[in-house]
Amino acid sequence: MTAIKDSVHDYVPVTGVAAELLDTPAVQRLRHIKQLSTVRLVYPSANHTRFEHSLGVYHLADRACDHLGITGERAERVRAAALLHDVGHGPYGHQTEDVIRRRTGRHHDEVGDLLGEGRLAAVLEDHGLDPAAVAALVDGRGELGQLISGELDVDRTDYLLRDAHHTGVPYGTVDPGRFLRALGLRDGDLVLSAGNVQTAESLLVARALMDATVYRHHVSRIAGAMLERACERLLDDPAGPDIERFRRLTDGELLERLVGTDATAEFGRRIRDRDLYKRAVWAEREDIPPELRGLDFETTAGAEREVADAAGVDPRSVVLDSPSDPALKESSVRVVVGGEVRRLDEHSPLVEALQAAARTRWRLGVYAPADHTDEVSRAARRVLGLDDA
Amino acid sequence: MTAIKDSVHDYVPVTGVAAELLDTPAVQRLRHIKQLSTVRLVYPSANHTRFEHSLGVYHLADRACDHLGITGERAERVRAAALLHDVGHGPYGHQTEDVIRRRTGRHHDEVGDLLGEGRLAAVLEDHGLDPAAVAALVDGRGELGQLISGELDVDRTDYLLRDAHHTGVPYGTVDPGRFLRALGLRDGDLVLSAGNVQTAESLLVARALMDATVYRHHVSRIAGAMLERACERLLDDPAGPDIERFRRLTDGELLERLVGTDATAEFGRRIRDRDLYKRAVWAEREDIPPELRGLDFETTAGAEREVADAAGVDPRSVVLDSPSDPALKESSVRVVVGGEVRRLDEHSPLVEALQAAARTRWRLGVYAPADHTDEVSRAARRVLGLDDA
Amino acid sequence: MTAIKDSVHDYVPVTGVAAELLDTPAVQRLRHIKQLSTVRLVYPSANHTRFEHSLGVYHLADRACDHLGITGERAERVRAAALLHDVGHGPYGHQTEDVIRRRTGRHHDEVGDLLGEGRLAAVLEDHGLDPAAVAALVDGRGELGQLISGELDVDRTDYLLRDAHHTGVPYGTVDPGRFLRALGLRDGDLVLSAGNVQTAESLLVARALMDATVYRHHVSRIAGAMLERACERLLDDPAGPDIERFRRLTDGELLERLVGTDATAEFGRRIRDRDLYKRAVWAEREDIPPELRGLDFETTAGAEREVADAAGVDPRSVVLDSPSDPALKESSVRVVVGGEVRRLDEHSPLVEALQAAARTRWRLGVYAPADHTDEVSRAARRVLGLDDA
Amino acid sequence: MTAIKDSVHDYVPVTGVAAELLDTPAVQRLRHIKQLSTVRLVYPSANHTRFEHSLGVYHLADRACDHLGITGERAERVRAAALLHDVGHGPYGHQTEDVIRRRTGRHHDEVGDLLGEGRLAAVLEDHGLDPAAVAALVDGRGELGQLISGELDVDRTDYLLRDAHHTGVPYGTVDPGRFLRALGLRDGDLVLSAGNVQTAESLLVARALMDATVYRHHVSRIAGAMLERACERLLDDPAGPDIERFRRLTDGELLERLVGTDATAEFGRRIRDRDLYKRAVWAEREDIPPELRGLDFETTAGAEREVADAAGVDPRSVVLDSPSDPALKESSVRVVVGGEVRRLDEHSPLVEALQAAARTRWRLGVYAPADHTDEVSRAARRVLGLDDA
Repeated sequence: MTAIKDSVHDYVPVTGVAAELLDTPAVQRLRHIKQLSTVRLVYPSANHTRFEHSLGVYHLADRACDHLGITGERAERVRAAALLHDVGHGPYGHQTEDVIRRRTGRHHDEVGDLLGEGRLAAVLEDHGLDPAAVAALVDGRGELGQLISGELDVDRTDYLLRDAHHTGVPYGTVDPGRFLRALGLRDGDLVLSAGNVQTAESLLVARALMDATVYRHHVSRIAGAMLERACERLLDDPAGPDIERFRRLTDGELLERLVGTDATAEFGRRIRDRDLYKRAVWAEREDIPPELRGLDFETTAGAEREVADAAGVDPRSVVLDSPSDPALKESSVRVVVGGEVRRLDEHSPLVEALQAAARTRWRLGVYAPADHTDEVSRAARRVLGLDDA
Repeated sequence: MTAIKDSVHDYVPVTGVAAELLDTPAVQRLRHIKQLSTVRLVYPSANHTRFEHSLGVYHLADRACDHLGITGERAERVRAAALLHDVGHGPYGHQTEDVIRRRTGRHHDEVGDLLGEGRLAAVLEDHGLDPAAVAALVDGRGELGQLISGELDVDRTDYLLRDAHHTGVPYGTVDPGRFLRALGLRDGDLVLSAGNVQTAESLLVARALMDATVYRHHVSRIAGAMLERACERLLDDPAGPDIERFRRLTDGELLERLVGTDATAEFGRRIRDRDLYKRAVWAEREDIPPELRGLDFETTAGAEREVADAAGVDPRSVVLDSPSDPALKESSVRVVVGGEVRRLDEHSPLVEALQAAARTRWRLGVYAPADHTDEVSRAARRVLGLDDA
Repeated sequence: MTAIKDSVHDYVPVTGVAAELLDTPAVQRLRHIKQLSTVRLVYPSANHTRFEHSLGVYHLADRACDHLGITGERAERVRAAALLHDVGHGPYGHQTEDVIRRRTGRHHDEVGDLLGEGRLAAVLEDHGLDPAAVAALVDGRGELGQLISGELDVDRTDYLLRDAHHTGVPYGTVDPGRFLRALGLRDGDLVLSAGNVQTAESLLVARALMDATVYRHHVSRIAGAMLERACERLLDDPAGPDIERFRRLTDGELLERLVGTDATAEFGRRIRDRDLYKRAVWAEREDIPPELRGLDFETTAGAEREVADAAGVDPRSVVLDSPSDPALKESSVRVVVGGEVRRLDEHSPLVEALQAAARTRWRLGVYAPADHTDEVSRAARRVLGLDDA
Repeated sequence: MTAIKDSVHDYVPVTGVAAELLDTPAVQRLRHIKQLSTVRLVYPSANHTRFEHSLGVYHLADRACDHLGITGERAERVRAAALLHDVGHGPYGHQTEDVIRRRTGRHHDEVGDLLGEGRLAAVLEDHGLDPAAVAALVDGRGELGQLISGELDVDRTDYLLRDAHHTGVPYGTVDPGRFLRALGLRDGDLVLSAGNVQTAESLLVARALMDATVYRHHVSRIAGAMLERACERLLDDPAGPDIERFRRLTDGELLERLVGTDATAEFGRRIRDRDLYKRAVWAEREDIPPELRGLDFETTAGAEREVADAAGVDPRSVVLDSPSDPALKESSVRVVVGGEVRRLDEHSPLVEALQAAARTRWRLGVYAPADHTDEVSRAARRVLGLDDA
């Protein structure tokens, strides 16, 4: 039996269908997709990849099956889904998700097409597994789908721990052993057993603190926003890749293309050399008109052009970022309290408070090259009506 | 310059007044007082002592002075207070605090008498420090008193980290480097600088999760309640130590006395061998009459006798525990947000939510020897009126 | 199934005979015996106990059985032996070993008498285990005895890791996962499988570095030597405990007795308050007459008296320490290299080199109260003939 | 003052010349050079980069200056050299070192040309530092050159710790605090102060164990050998980059070029997808003719062609690897023992033993595609004369 040494879980034994899936190009490609994409520009040690994360999720899923007494084909299906849950990611992971969705309608979790053909399908079928059933688990559907992609999933448990280990920010240091031991099944649904309200709360809180400090750090968001705009231009370029080719690129291949294409060379270089735009506007939630919260792509692009125009700068010199509110999927986690299954958000006042805390941290940002922040700031405040708010 | 190797902070350089204070019996005694007293009965690795904790607090205070630009005598005073902040603890730390307070009126933080005489006073005075001023800092008063014993103190930062390291429960893994870098002074008051709302929240949350999982674990509370009752009997015993002698005992000396005194031998042995009482009643906050919450010593003792009577068991066979609500001193922490100093509880919805969460975890417990839990349970429910609630 | 949280191995599941053994006073007593006795006077965080260490050894033995395919009664026997391997320790562990051996002829590993009667025997027999067979394993005899007490044992793997965690000295950070995966059986003997020469070397080296930095630190040796002399006096005292009572004391009970007995009060206080003797002589191996290496108890005592006489000080004011050479039991470890089983010391040049390195670190020490080191130094150099060497 | 969060050293404060150097493209490029190049194919979490390592080395150099009392321009020079010590690395670090040296005669440590022009020179001169003097330090020359690149350098201290953190292999877990505190200057030379023989030994041993387990793992060597051969072909290709362009590529840019060039596409793909050659021959040192040890590039290439010929396979299907012996630069470390400065290899028997141990681990490897290992094995044994040895 092979075991792979991992910096987070120590030895991860790999057997059965997983051992063969590991050797497919689709899984090996994840070695070239960083887990935290542009976060490495803030936390330079955060270079870990979706490959090692996928191994970690596989390992936790395997241990969860053990703990829940799930064996045989059911367990193989769960383990395969865990290992494959990220193969649908485009380059730079979540940062290109919207670009890809706008052009294909497909979200990275919809891996049915990837699992249904080629070597992945062949390996799954060789092991008696239905690719569609595995894809359903990745999507959070079906029996134990919640374990892979739900409110209480092994995906989150792994990434919190791993991101803490690699960024050096300890807030994600959750207790996977306690989480796994708390898992139970009630009428086919995953629940946390009695005495584990704070086990659920701890995961919730870890994610909220990591969100604030790591995942939504404004420098990472600036780089992400610049990357997204460069990707749009690359895909619009006649010599650029088509969207199907694009979503199979690795991080390095995408950066290389951005740097090597005229229309995207400057943004490519700026991302490569960490020479990013700076804050021109930075506004709290209650200080902006409500209709500016969570702007869609078209509205954002229009506003950027309008601000650039008003500032007398190149349209590419304005980047507007109005984030959506963080979702708290954990809120519907079920926990056994006093013998009954309760929803976490009905039982724990933390769920609501963490959502409120996230709103106090929310910021609208307008970003520009360092030597244009003054004029962009003035123009943006006027165009967006910030001074009237 | 000496440096002492610590499992949490690595090398702790020790200089000046601290180097001499370290060698006094009052500080060396802290090697024999466990940081988490009866928690080791739940988490067997939690055998760390108030000595290493005091060193850690000293180290963080030293780094905080450095960061805040405090030097010379002001810094020496702070460092001395940090190192001495726990010398007032009785055996088993917080577990004997109430016993001692009832007989002396003195809380362990009132260290004026200890610092004002003997070797501690001599060392402080040799270094030009006023013992009373150091004692004031320990008590949270005076300039920088907040740093030693306040809402944002180095005491808490150290114990959260240290307790996480030694119990294995990761929830206390806070970020001391970030905390120290966030400290600032505004008009003489300690504040957290801009961008550090979640630094404060992370400390708050870490303590709340450690409270639930470690500090208020019911097995540790049972042992603590048994210890408290045994100490009362020991002090009532004509052959027992007087209260001044008692509060200077070490953990080992107290346990030895409990085991060696007839009136306390059984409880002493039960604590030593972890042969504890079991839960006879375990009731949520909303399931009990409000007047049963946070009972004082006399009322508790009366209720125990009444229940024992009704159950037909020895009065020592009933232990009633109705904890006080956890205080959240962190709530008045001041953080700079948008250029202004704001109180954390006015800015962060987490403060209120954590207090509410603590209330949902609150339990009233009645404990008894394993072979008497049934009759004690029935008697207690009747006597305390739990079934009518 | 119970699982106990441990700071080193995270959750340790406890089942079968181990769950019942845990609750016996003989095992609970180990909570009151520190793993590293006087080392805490150098590394103040090193307060971990033989209880948590025993749990850790049990856990590694359990995982080793799993890996080796050993199940049922054979595995239960191994697990029981692992949990009980230290119940024979006297107070302060190895530091009283020689005292006890001189009076009883019994080494702490000879636990036959403890396992053969009372609750331990009852629990073992209830689970169908022969106490004598378990005692043999503790002593390193019988099938898999090597796993418990041999050249490659789980005892060492646990203590190296645990001592590193608690002292803060990283040299003991071995790789238990690799060690367990390397274990195999060949003709009934434990071997390390192919490719694991450096797995064995890493354990060897970790111990050698921990020996130099931690286990044989001269401050710990001074305290240990003072303790040993105090114990002899306590046992010689008419009011002192007999040897059978003595070997069952805990650390705290012994210290309490030393402080409370006239003949030993000073040494007891000095150990309690870390007010230790200082170095009067500190000589390298090649600078002393060969017959002074590794002196036995009687010769040491005689030399101490002679030196004290010559120095004109109280006989208790001289402590002579001439350590024995460290044994390297690891040298006969068997490793598979190129398909054949080879002895590690025949294959790895490190074994011999580490023994040589230990000899270069060896020191003869003469210790005395701080205010007598000068006269004791002069007298000792003369009496021991050090200046002629 | 900026501080950057690092997964190994926590916060790294960055000031002065370092803050400006950080923003240069030459330093930012190190974000795209992995510290352990092909080792990530064995230890999938080992994706850390030369950027964060350079920051770490800078931090340790800064602390060493502090400890040694070195300030002002001398310290700035040391810090600049520490931060820049790796800017001369080609893509895939050490793996392309020989390729580059064969074509330019330049070793990656010869950074004079890089530091003497462009933005690096400008920044250094702005801060009053002579680029040539900084380059000399990187090369280990001049005052304190030993600290940057010597027997006792901060480079090694950082990489051992960092590689342990990211691979999960604990053997590199050295004690940087102890190392820094042990540093001293004697007549201008770096020495380790008294009592630190084992501090030096611990670094030596850590590197030896990491060499065996990580740095010289055969799978990483296979990938490295394949990469080297592909780079030679890329540079021979008329459409390939010239050597000056080549040495400035990042890891990703090189891999992209290998995959996109006909002559190197297969090897590029095999490295990208971890579809590596397998062992056809694997021979111990004493089992091969001495003249086959440490073969140079030309001889290796000739032997590969001959073996391929004899096996009837494509010449690219044979990869021969006969490593050079590991150097042990640590052997001339100076340590104070008994008041005198001694060379470590004269004092510690470990130095010689570790060299001998490395020789027992040495292997000659011949590698081939999985479906050709049999014929290549037979041909290689015959051609290389292995069966006669």
